Parts: sequence; structure tokens; C-alpha cells
Amino acid sequence: MYRAPLNQISQTLNQVAGLPELLKTELFSELSPDIIDAILQEAARFSETRITPLRTKGDQQGATLKNAEVTTTEGWKALYKDWTDGGWNALTGDTAYGGQGLPTLLSVAVAEMWNSGSLGFAIASTLTMGAVEALEHHASDALKNTYLEKLISGEWSGTMNLTEPQAGSDLGALRSRAERADDGSYRIFGQKIFITYGEHDLTDNIVHLVLARLPDAPAGTKGISLFLVPKYLVNEDGSLGARNDVFCAGLEEKLGLHASPTCTMIYGDGFGDTGEKGAVGYLIGEEHKGLACMFTMMNNARLLVGIQGVAVAEAAYQKARAYAAERRQGRSLNAAKGAGMSPIIEHPDVARMLLTMKGLTQASRSICYATAQALDMAKADHANGTFWANRASLLTPLAKAFSTDSGVDVASLGIQVHGGMGYIEETGAAQLLRDARILPIYEGTNGIQAIDLVMRKLPLENGGHIHGFLQELRDITEQAKASDTLKIIAPQLELALNTAEEATRFLQDCIVKGDNQTALCGATAYQRLLSLTVGALYLTKAGLHDDNSAALAAFFAQNTLQETAGLKQVVLDGAANLTYATKLLQDI
Amino acid sequence: MYRAPLNQISQTLNQVAGLPELLKTELFSELSPDIIDAILQEAARFSETRITPLRTKGDQQGATLKNAEVTTTEGWKALYKDWTDGGWNALTGDTAYGGQGLPTLLSVAVAEMWNSGSLGFAIASTLTMGAVEALEHHASDALKNTYLEKLISGEWSGTMNLTEPQAGSDLGALRSRAERADDGSYRIFGQKIFITYGEHDLTDNIVHLVLARLPDAPAGTKGISLFLVPKYLVNEDGSLGARNDVFCAGLEEKLGLHASPTCTMIYGDGFGDTGEKGAVGYLIGEEHKGLACMFTMMNNARLLVGIQGVAVAEAAYQKARAYAAERRQGRSLNAAKGAGMSPIIEHPDVARMLLTMKGLTQASRSICYATAQALDMAKADHANGTFWANRASLLTPLAKAFSTDSGVDVASLGIQVHGGMGYIEETGAAQLLRDARILPIYEGTNGIQAIDLVMRKLPLENGGHIHGFLQELRDITEQAKASDTLKIIAPQLELALNTAEEATRFLQDCIVKGDNQTALCGATAYQRLLSLTVGALYLTKAGLHDDNSAALAAFFAQNTLQETAGLKQVVLDGAANLTYATKLLQDI
Repeated sequence: MYRAPLNQISQTLNQVAGLPELLKTELFSELSPDIIDAILQEAARFSETRITPLRTKGDQQGATLKNAEVTTTEGWKALYKDWTDGGWNALTGDTAYGGQGLPTLLSVAVAEMWNSGSLGFAIASTLTMGAVEALEHHASDALKNTYLEKLISGEWSGTMNLTEPQAGSDLGALRSRAERADDGSYRIFGQKIFITYGEHDLTDNIVHLVLARLPDAPAGTKGISLFLVPKYLVNEDGSLGARNDVFCAGLEEKLGLHASPTCTMIYGDGFGDTGEKGAVGYLIGEEHKGLACMFTMMNNARLLVGIQGVAVAEAAYQKARAYAAERRQGRSLNAAKGAGMSPIIEHPDVARMLLTMKGLTQASRSICYATAQALDMAKADHANGTFWANRASLLTPLAKAFSTDSGVDVASLGIQVHGGMGYIEETGAAQLLRDARILPIYEGTNGIQAIDLVMRKLPLENGGHIHGFLQELRDITEQAKASDTLKIIAPQLELALNTAEEATRFLQDCIVKGDNQTALCGATAYQRLLSLTVGALYLTKAGLHDDNSAALAAFFAQNTLQETAGLKQVVLDGAANLTYATKLLQDI
Repeated sequence: MYRAPLNQISQTLNQVAGLPELLKTELFSELSPDIIDAILQEAARFSETRITPLRTKGDQQGATLKNAEVTTTEGWKALYKDWTDGGWNALTGDTAYGGQGLPTLLSVAVAEMWNSGSLGFAIASTLTMGAVEALEHHASDALKNTYLEKLISGEWSGTMNLTEPQAGSDLGALRSRAERADDGSYRIFGQKIFITYGEHDLTDNIVHLVLARLPDAPAGTKGISLFLVPKYLVNEDGSLGARNDVFCAGLEEKLGLHASPTCTMIYGDGFGDTGEKGAVGYLIGEEHKGLACMFTMMNNARLLVGIQGVAVAEAAYQKARAYAAERRQGRSLNAAKGAGMSPIIEHPDVARMLLTMKGLTQASRSICYATAQALDMAKADHANGTFWANRASLLTPLAKAFSTDSGVDVASLGIQVHGGMGYIEETGAAQLLRDARILPIYEGTNGIQAIDLVMRKLPLENGGHIHGFLQELRDITEQAKASDTLKIIAPQLELALNTAEEATRFLQDCIVKGDNQTALCGATAYQRLLSLTVGALYLTKAGLHDDNSAALAAFFAQNTLQETAGLKQVVLDGAANLTYATKLLQDI
């Protein structure tokens, strides 16, 4: 079963993602490496001994709905209580509301471990943390005082209510409506779908953040407001009051993530105990400016979804490696003459699959951790706040898209390593693929991430930020040239960087010229090209410190990174043909 | 729902896979294009109206085991009866035993349609056809007379019993044993796992082909014999006799393919009605030479598994295309000003996913059909029988591995096109991925296919066969240069061919030098490189005939084919580093 890869996590924090620089800032000056190690070790223990053993049960039993109430898997409630009692939900929360104010960088390392244990369990708190983030940034003091402390402790949980049947990627199409009430609150009406942990039995109250339109709202995305809608109203003394008019009307039957209830939520059907129709809601931020508030929450959520990709990849890698070390079939060419069957890990094709899995996992981890560090530095390094915010902004789509694609690819390779056993549910490899397959979709599909990267992130600092970043990566290549173990891959790294630069300039030119269509045609290929390049250089950065990391960097550069040559051509040449070929889609 | 792509199938048969050449041979001289069209249309109708509507039910209800008897999904039995009554099982069977003696090429086109309807249904007959093939080639006349007619009609079904818990890819490790009986028959003892349709209620009798060892058998693969073991013994008059000592002891719970029972079979536990212990079996071919007989059956089965990949890809493409044409989100850049939301098919990233799916599907179909044609030509073109047998031999691993990888990739992209709806089981997109995921594993994992390709197929005709084939593909490129619509991709096609040739010579040199380890390290990358190249040229061949095919060939060459540049480097440079990096796999 899963063993938290503390060495890898620690190396990535310290050698790749700049934890030492973070600890030098005043904001985090009280943190020491010892404290961080202790936290990581305790998280590892909790995930290994408490969460991981329930992964299969969560899949098999799932969550059930009866009379608008959802029951989670047996054992889930105690697990959640022990987890929040351990203070794990409060890690990054504002210290003024009981949080521990620890860096996001530490929280993603810890979140990786929860998610490797069970995606279906860990996602609950991901949503709560998103809600906390949105409230900290945009809510009134009154709302903060009522809700933040209990959300930070995890006594209550949070949800994000965006999607409606006709409004998924296009939030401008949403129709849920809000009416102003006399007391300054609002009444919310409408239906939301795909609401993760929209209803459950882990906490006494659930705090929904809901996007809706006011009657006088402009059309499209500029007419959307954000509301806080509690499951139970909260009395002035903090105790729970009337049942609000928001109910779960259905659970989705999904490919995976069965432990996590995916709810259809109905607002304002008149079944609450508040004495009137309409779910009582409270405005967060300004009217009609809800989308900006929600994006605060979504950026954080995107990084955490990226971490889910890392987590499931790690779990899949470990499971496949363990199987391949045990399972014997055939005799490898390197085996002694007359030896019996070899562990399949000794067959080159199996070794290649495992190393590919390990490389993708570590590259994804590096990108996600670097994103988190940039978010922290944006708060801690005031002199360079904009720079770090831009860096986090640039890396977020890579963290989300590349890590989640890796999660799916690694989980699928994990099945392949298991052979026929991988297809049997009892083995657990298949669950990891089923669980992972949502990751490239939710919190903005990976196609949406690519659009975000090309149209919003490449233009940062008049197009300069990305080139500064590529130059930083070039500096790593220069250091690699001086390393006995890494100089062999310097040509591949330079080629990839040149490739990334050429593709970047091509897309930036398209945007400057107003040829957005060509830019959009190449966006997904570019996103992967840049991610592979960044990942390879981050692996190299770690490789400067020790031989094992150097070996992984070399394998990645000589194998996985090779994809970039083809991707560049797709960015450069693929657009015209794509447009031409779409006529083929008119018919089967 | 699924509509059989008769135009694509017909184009592939005629313009890519050489159906016209086949019809010129004496063996198939009585076949006319009209007859073939009629057969294809009737198959399309049967799949669309009878099989496809039961696909979901087969997944949800699956097969159940009680008292060693398996009940298939409700409606399955009537479906199977109507299908065999239509003569569909007998398409390629020997006319001397009631078969129609039609070409394999036609049968794979038809098999594609059954499998697009439901993989879980169609796989039953795939196994029967494999058994027929083995009996036709290797069985005694007595066995043929007793079993062939009913297997060809489909009144009885066939199975392949290879795998044991300790013997999967490595059949040399199998332990099931056979004892000689006084009457010239044998008694079989042992356990087999992963036996598809090993027990079911579709037919009155089930004919198991079973690999086992005689007491005096040499160790390893040279001591394996093949036996026919019927579920019910057959009396001299052809009626069913005693229940044989072979029973289903368990069904696997699998990721997908729920409609197809995957059985653990126990031979010789003493529960039959034959009056003695041990399952009564009859030798097929010679003692200790069973593996060769089984390979006859497996090669055919590998092609049919490739067809399953094509079939599931086609079904996934159609489903995703239909959804993308309906679903509206956002406004595409090409939409009229002030227009509402566009169908997502108009967004470049979605169009790219769909065109990638379509290209992979059509490239896979082309390779599979070409393989089938070569098998037919090997029988029909006596003057060049060896050449065609070698061609089929070369193409079989590509047909199996590339098509099944494509099946998984296309089904996964299909989920992505659906967004959140793709993760909901009701949509049906997820089932296609779950069903497809076994295809790269069974009938020889795709890693095994790559070893077969590099170690056994590249050396054919002293290494010359592959180069003759590449030259044929070059000739297509020359024709493309003369085409207005295709000349634009001539550089990509030539580059890919040069790349394939360089990688081929590199691997052939390794083998000649005895450096098998390096060859094995690059085998999987080479298999994909060659498949993409062959696929691109086959698409181009079709593109010489019409504009739509040319557009697809151009998209494939400018996008999907670009992968080949990186794959070549992996073949050439990847081995040393792979060997070095394997030390990383010693620990998590």
C-alpha cells in the first residue's frame, strides 16, 4: 500500500521549489526545517495509517442519498473528525481566525499525501479551503466573523456552486437568480449540478458559495454575483438556526471518485424552515463582480487539482512498482544463465513504463510545488510581489493541466504494468484510473487551461515574464553542463528550451497580430510542450544535488521530453490544417 | 447512438486494403462488390438495431455465476441466437463444414461493426472463430467432423485456455497437466484463469481449447500440448452426452467488459458425470507441439483484438462528435457577431480532439484491414504465398498494439470532449474507456507485441521484408506529390519514412550484433513509430481518391504523425539511459 515519499517530497521542496528562500522571508521566519519535517512526517503517518486503508471501501460503498441527506462511506465521518482534530484543515488559514498561517507550499505537500491516500476523501477539504480563500479576500467582516473560524477548523465545510446544466465552461450562461431582501440579505433560486460534497454527513453545517444573477444584472459574465448560502442559518451566538432552503436532489453515478458525493443542488424550492421561499444568501464582494471573487478560489483550487494529479500518479507508481518487483514472468536478458523467471521489473519495457511514470510524477510534483511557492512569495516578498504573482499565474495552468494529464497517463500505465491483474478491480489499479479521469475535466478543463495560458499568461509583463522564466531555466542548463552526470543531456535540454522559445514567440506574435484563432489552435500542444520543458529542467535542478535525481532527469530528457519536437510543429503548422479539416466533422 | 460508418469501411476496403486485388484471385472469384455491399449493409443494420441497444444493459447487468453456471445479460441469449441464425458466425468458416468461406478481410469489417455495438457481446464469437481456425489447421478429421460444423454455425462456442495464475505472458510456466487414457483420449487437470466466456448460457455446449503438459513433457514452452475439452461429451450421433469434469469456479470483477464473463475454470476436480476424475480431452496436433497450434489461433485473435480497438474508437468518436455538435458553450471566434453560444465542435481545441480521434480510428482501421487482406492473399495468391504470409506477420503486432492503444486514447479523449458529462456513467462515454482498457493487455500485451515485432518480424526475409514494405509506402508519397490536396504533406511523410527506416536499420543492426537488450529497450517506441508512419501513408493512399480523406490525411500528418521525431530518438538514444536509470526502481 501507499508509503508517503517523504524523501522525494522533501527534495522537491528544498532543491526545486525554493522552500529555503521562503523561510528567509519575514512572514515565514518562525518556521524552521525541523518543524516542517515534523509536520510532513505526521501527515505521512496519518495518510498511511488512516486514509489509505479506507480508499477501497470509499470506492465500493460510495456515498448514498436518502431524503435529501447524504451518508458517506462507513468510517469516513470518524476519519474526517480525527483529521480536523489534528488541525490539518487549518494549516494555511488566517491566524486571526484560528488558522496556522503556514505556507501554501507546505499545504500542497501535505495535500499530496491526503490525496494519495484517497482522492475521494481529500477533495472535501480542497473545496473548504477554496471557500476560506474566497472569504478571506472578499467577504465582509461580519461574514468572516460568522463563518471563517469554523471553516478553517473544518467544523463546517465549504462548496463551490458554479455549474448549471447549460453553463459549464461558459459561466456567462448561468441562470440561477438572486433577489434582494429587505434586511440586506438575498434569496437564491435555481439549480446547480456537479457540486462536490454539496451534501454530506461529515459536518454540522455546509457553507455553499453560489454564483447567481440579480434581476438587474447585465448579461454574460459581468452580471454574476457570489453569495454565501449556509445549509443551516447561523444565529447571532454562533449556534445553528433554521434549515435553509437548499437541498440535494440527486447524486451522480460516476466513473470513479465514488466516495465523494457529486450533488445536484436545488435552491429556493420552498422546503426550508426559514418561513419563506428562497435560500437565504449573503453577498460576497460586490454585486455583479462575483466572478472575480470566484476566480480567487478557482486558482487555488486549480493548483490543488494539479496536486491531486501528482497524488494519484504517485499512488499508481508505487502500486505498479511493487507488483513488478514481485511478479515473475519470463527470464530477462540480464538474468544469470539457468535462473528461473525474473521479476518483470527487469524487463526493459516494464522498466520503461515505470520510469516514465516516475518521471511524469516527479515533473508534475515539481511544477505544482513551484506554483505554490510563487503564491507564497507573492505574499511574503513585498518588493517583488507582482513578479511572484505573475509567476504563480503563469504556472497555474501547467500545474493543473500537466499534472492531471500525468495522473491519468500514469494510472493507465499502472494498469498496463499489472497486465491482466490490472483489469481486475480487486487489485486497485483500475480505481486509480477511474478516480483520476475527472481531473483533466473539473476546475476548468485542460483545454480551458491552455486558452488561459496562451491568451492571458503569455502576455504578462508585455510578454516578458515567460521569457524571463525561460532564461532562468537556461541557467539550470548551464549548471548541468558542469555536472558529470547531467552534461550528457544538455543538448536535449537546450533543444527543448529553444523549441519552447520558438513556440512562445510564434504564439505571442499571433496574439499581437490579432490572429487569436491560430493561437487557440496551438494552445493545447503548447501547454504540453512548455510543461515538459519546465518539468525536465526542474528534474535537472534536483539532479544537480544527487545522483538518483540526475538519473531520473536523464531518463526524462532522453525519453519523455522527446515529445516536444513534434509538439512544436503542431503549434507552428497545425492551425491551418485544423481549420481546413473541421469540415470532416460535419458527418460521421 | 452508433451508426455503422459504411462509407469509411467501404473506402478502406477498396482504396486502402486491396479488396479489388483479392476479388481477382480465383479463390474469391465468385464474390462481387454487390454481394459485399449487401453483407456490409445487413451487418450494419443488425449491429445498429440489435446489438448497440443492449450495450448499456450488458454493462450494468453483466454476467452472474450461480452453482457453476453463468447467466448472461437479459436479452443476450436471444440476440446471440438471432445473430447465429443470420449466419454471421459462419462467415469465414470452411465450406466443407457449413462455413461460407468468405475472406477474412470481409469478416474483420463486419467484426468491427459487432464490436462497435458491444465489445462484451462480440468477443464471444471472436474466441469461437479462433477455435475454428485452430481446429481447421491442426485437428484430426474425427475432431473436425464432430466439432467444426457446430462451432462454425455458432451452435456451440469456443474458448482459449492459456493463462494460469503463475503463467501469463510466460506460457512456459504453465502447470496444468494431461494424462493419457487407454482409449487414446486424455484426462486434463488444473486451473485456468481469465477465460473469456469460459461458461455461459448462450450455447448448449462449450468447446475449450486447453494448454497442458503431459507427464513426460520437456520443461518450458516445448512441453506444452493443446487439447480440446468439451463442456459436454459428444455422442457418436452428435447428441450431447455426459457433463465433462470442467467447471467455472469464479467470475472476475473487472473494470469493464461486464457483459463478458471472465471465468476461472477448474479441470479435473471430479464433479463431472463421466464416471471418472479428470476432464476428458482430445489432442489437437502433436504432443508437446501445442503452442504452435495455439499461435495459429492467437494471430487471428490478435487481429480481431485490433479490430476491437478500431470498433471502440469509432463508437467513442461518434458519441463525442454528436455531443460536441449539440452542446453549446462560449462563442467561437468564427461565430457571427452577436450570435449566441456556439456548438463546442467549433472551438479549436474540441475540433482538434475530434480530428485526432478520427485520424487514429481511421489509421487503425486501415492497418487492421490491410493485415486481414494479407492473410487472405496468403491463401489466395499461391505464387506469392510466403510474401503475403510475411506481410500479415509483420502487420499483426501493429494491428493489435496500435489499434488497441488508439482505442484507449480515443475513448479517453471522448470523455474529455464530453466535459463533466463524460464522467457520468449514464452518458456512456466512460463505459467505452472501461471496456477498451483491457485491449492493450489481453492476447499478448502491447509490450509483448513490440518484442514480437522487433525480434521476429524485422528479421523476416533476412531483414528485407520490412524495407520492401517501406518502399511501397514511399511510392504512395510519390503519388501524393502529384496531388494538389496532398503535396503539402509530402515533406512530413518523407521525414516519417526516413525516420522509420533509420530506426529499423538501427534495431536490425542491434539484433545482428547480438545486442538484444538495446533492441528490446526501443521496441515499444519503434512499434508506435512504425504504426504512425504506416497509418499516415494509408490515410494518404485513401486521400488520393477523395478530398475528405485527403483532409484527414493532412491533419494526421501535420499533427499526430509529428510524434515520430521524438520516438526515433527514444529508439536510438533511450536504451543506455533506461538501463542506467533502472536502479531508481529499487525503492519508492
